[in-house]
Amino acid sequence: VIDSDPLVDALTAVVGPTHVLTEPGMMAGFEVDWTRRWRGRARAVVRPGATAEVASCLRCCADAGAAVVPQGGNTGLVGGSVPRGGEVVMSLTRLDGLGDVDRAAAQVSAGAGVTLAQLQAHVAAAGLGFGVDLAARDSATVGGMVATNAGGLHVLRHGAMRAQVLGVEAVLADGSVVRRMDGLVKDNSGYDLAGLLCGSEGTLAVVTEVRLRLVPVWPHRVTALVGTGGLDAALDLLVRLRSVPGLEAVEVMFADGVELVRAETGLGPSPVGPAPCQLVIECAGLEDPTDALGTVLSGPGVTGTAVASDPGGRTRLWAWRERHTEAVNSLGVPHKLDVALPLGRLAAFEAAVRPAVAAVAPGAAIVIWGHLGDGNLHVNVVGPPADDEAVDDAVLRLAAAHGGSISAEHGIGVAKRRWLGLTRAPADVSAMRAIKDALDPGRMLNPGVLWAVGQ
Amino acid sequence: VIDSDPLVDALTAVVGPTHVLTEPGMMAGFEVDWTRRWRGRARAVVRPGATAEVASCLRCCADAGAAVVPQGGNTGLVGGSVPRGGEVVMSLTRLDGLGDVDRAAAQVSAGAGVTLAQLQAHVAAAGLGFGVDLAARDSATVGGMVATNAGGLHVLRHGAMRAQVLGVEAVLADGSVVRRMDGLVKDNSGYDLAGLLCGSEGTLAVVTEVRLRLVPVWPHRVTALVGTGGLDAALDLLVRLRSVPGLEAVEVMFADGVELVRAETGLGPSPVGPAPCQLVIECAGLEDPTDALGTVLSGPGVTGTAVASDPGGRTRLWAWRERHTEAVNSLGVPHKLDVALPLGRLAAFEAAVRPAVAAVAPGAAIVIWGHLGDGNLHVNVVGPPADDEAVDDAVLRLAAAHGGSISAEHGIGVAKRRWLGLTRAPADVSAMRAIKDALDPGRMLNPGVLWAVGQ
Repeated sequence: VIDSDPLVDALTAVVGPTHVLTEPGMMAGFEVDWTRRWRGRARAVVRPGATAEVASCLRCCADAGAAVVPQGGNTGLVGGSVPRGGEVVMSLTRLDGLGDVDRAAAQVSAGAGVTLAQLQAHVAAAGLGFGVDLAARDSATVGGMVATNAGGLHVLRHGAMRAQVLGVEAVLADGSVVRRMDGLVKDNSGYDLAGLLCGSEGTLAVVTEVRLRLVPVWPHRVTALVGTGGLDAALDLLVRLRSVPGLEAVEVMFADGVELVRAETGLGPSPVGPAPCQLVIECAGLEDPTDALGTVLSGPGVTGTAVASDPGGRTRLWAWRERHTEAVNSLGVPHKLDVALPLGRLAAFEAAVRPAVAAVAPGAAIVIWGHLGDGNLHVNVVGPPADDEAVDDAVLRLAAAHGGSISAEHGIGVAKRRWLGLTRAPADVSAMRAIKDALDPGRMLNPGVLWAVGQ
Repeated sequence: VIDSDPLVDALTAVVGPTHVLTEPGMMAGFEVDWTRRWRGRARAVVRPGATAEVASCLRCCADAGAAVVPQGGNTGLVGGSVPRGGEVVMSLTRLDGLGDVDRAAAQVSAGAGVTLAQLQAHVAAAGLGFGVDLAARDSATVGGMVATNAGGLHVLRHGAMRAQVLGVEAVLADGSVVRRMDGLVKDNSGYDLAGLLCGSEGTLAVVTEVRLRLVPVWPHRVTALVGTGGLDAALDLLVRLRSVPGLEAVEVMFADGVELVRAETGLGPSPVGPAPCQLVIECAGLEDPTDALGTVLSGPGVTGTAVASDPGGRTRLWAWRERHTEAVNSLGVPHKLDVALPLGRLAAFEAAVRPAVAAVAPGAAIVIWGHLGDGNLHVNVVGPPADDEAVDDAVLRLAAAHGGSISAEHGIGVAKRRWLGLTRAPADVSAMRAIKDALDPGRMLNPGVLWAVGQ
């Protein structure tokens, strides 16, 4: 005997029976994130297929006093896209419409459920590119990337997701629809709601469609894998690299992580040897940047260099950076800490974080990589149990003590809400809370994210 | 006999008697904007010299139930920085501190009262530049530019003010201070308050200091004055110009405006003759962009070209664009409309706006110029009385009907609040209003801006 749930009946009336899931086996994939650290039971999973359906579903949930967890590709790392227990999961993946590319304006409209890879293929067919790229491109959706202000590999050149968003359509908790999709580069007509929704982690509204800025596809592209004597030398190199035209990415990794990638993936020996600190650098432009890059790389502090301009060669060099994620996952479920530091404090932080982790989690593996150009390090720790927050506490406090951020690009979610006060003063937290309560007075959207339920 | 005002006494206790003005002659300059269209009497003018004084003054005003109009360089064009009647004007120009330039990170901290020209000189001394430039640079302040999300000449390359702001310090209506000044490129820790304050026109908080992104100073810079057969040809040219490296500005003006500039300024005949539509184009980069620009300008649609790479020659070409403002002011007090259109609708709007203005204001002069690369036209109308809104109504309705914005970069202020509903749906306006009331529940900050008092 299955108890009937009037909310499920109401949602079914909106989207049809195929798109409301209540059977545990059907819901399982929506209830756990891909790190497997964050999971919870859903009351139901609803999959609206249009903006009007999103609005109707939100009204049904409001009427029932039910909380809603918006979900895109479910590739988040801070527990913000899976239920904490008993919420309705609203999956937006059916909102997968893509508009015609406007080549003159270099813009496109994309539904929240379009994956990054789909977006990239669609705009590439029109001879354009998208400014944000990240490893989860086959699953991550545009809506989720907006909600988390996703960063990734090219922030150095193009900025994070917020810098790509020219307009948004979103549904507020009361079911009303806000729409600014004209693609205007300039529109100083009141508050920047689109920018506010970027990075709001599903707590203010459900993003249904976005208008996106596109970037040129450059005819010349070169990738370099570079060994340096250490992070100080890498930071010196970064300053000199800023003069290379079309600098797009400066990614950093360390000898232990590179060795782990080699051991786990069979990539063979690193073409630049066992340097303590290694970079993946990419430049792209109208002119071939190889010579300009080579000039900088022939300067001091570089212990080895491998350069490729062909797609196959470039992919092989990028693999050293991109396969860090799977390599560390092979060790167990990682605590994924994602911090940013002022560039002047980055080396001091990196030197201090390894002993700080060892002190609270003796024997744990710590693997660090990140986006050097943005001062952003991903600190991955494998060893402590998933429910032990001692490692997180040590790393996040250290970052805050160095003037850094406790979340560079992953967001706060459930995982880091305990530490929000480390870098946000009480007046700042109060202001955020006031905005939340102004737009979602019933605290219906993604409760437990940013603040614990009841706070 | 002068009646004593307890609020004036309280403010004087905070900032000292020198920095509280109540005498009409002393307040006059703070009570009228530079277009002379917007003016009102102030209860007092207070000039705090530190963030803590801003906070104390706001608490004094809150205690007295007094409204506050924050004011920077008072170069706004929509009546947002002068009193409507009886408010305290808070002038921020004494907050003029400039931090050391961080060359490695390419950042600087600036007080709200620093003028754009002071900022430009300060960072130039460190070999860097600032991404926003505009004609009012000697008076416009950093705080005002943040509050209005100022645009200007280089939005095409660097974005508007919001894109330059890495962090902000601001005082909320209750006197509490929000501070995010670490200069982190990435910090996804809750809502983007800095971005929200950009363009909020003094209605949400008083900005006291900002952390700004800086840009390179390019060794090569070239300016071109270009005649085209019309706006359609200019738009075709714009698409081809996007492939020129380092494209920084594409400014547009029309034959009647160019002739007015010639007549009013004594610049002599235009070096490109009487073309119907003229552009000022600027490119800058590590490599000399002259050849790449020349190749595009030798293509179809160009009727005349003058190019300069030396500072004197570049200034002479820019004068045709920059002196439009004084030329139109010589005709009388203009209605300054500032609209943005999707690029595909720009020519249709430009063709329709002249007869639309003539229909409601026969005999009025209409002079149009703008930032073509951003789809942004400044429509200046001289002739109707300052208090006649028929012209504004005609132009703004036409822009909205073409999918455009009623305020590209000037903001809404007092001048355009009547028309906010043309491009913002009721749900959108309600959301903005909710945010306003969340952060300033007493509606103390800049009442009458964005919404009429009492709405």
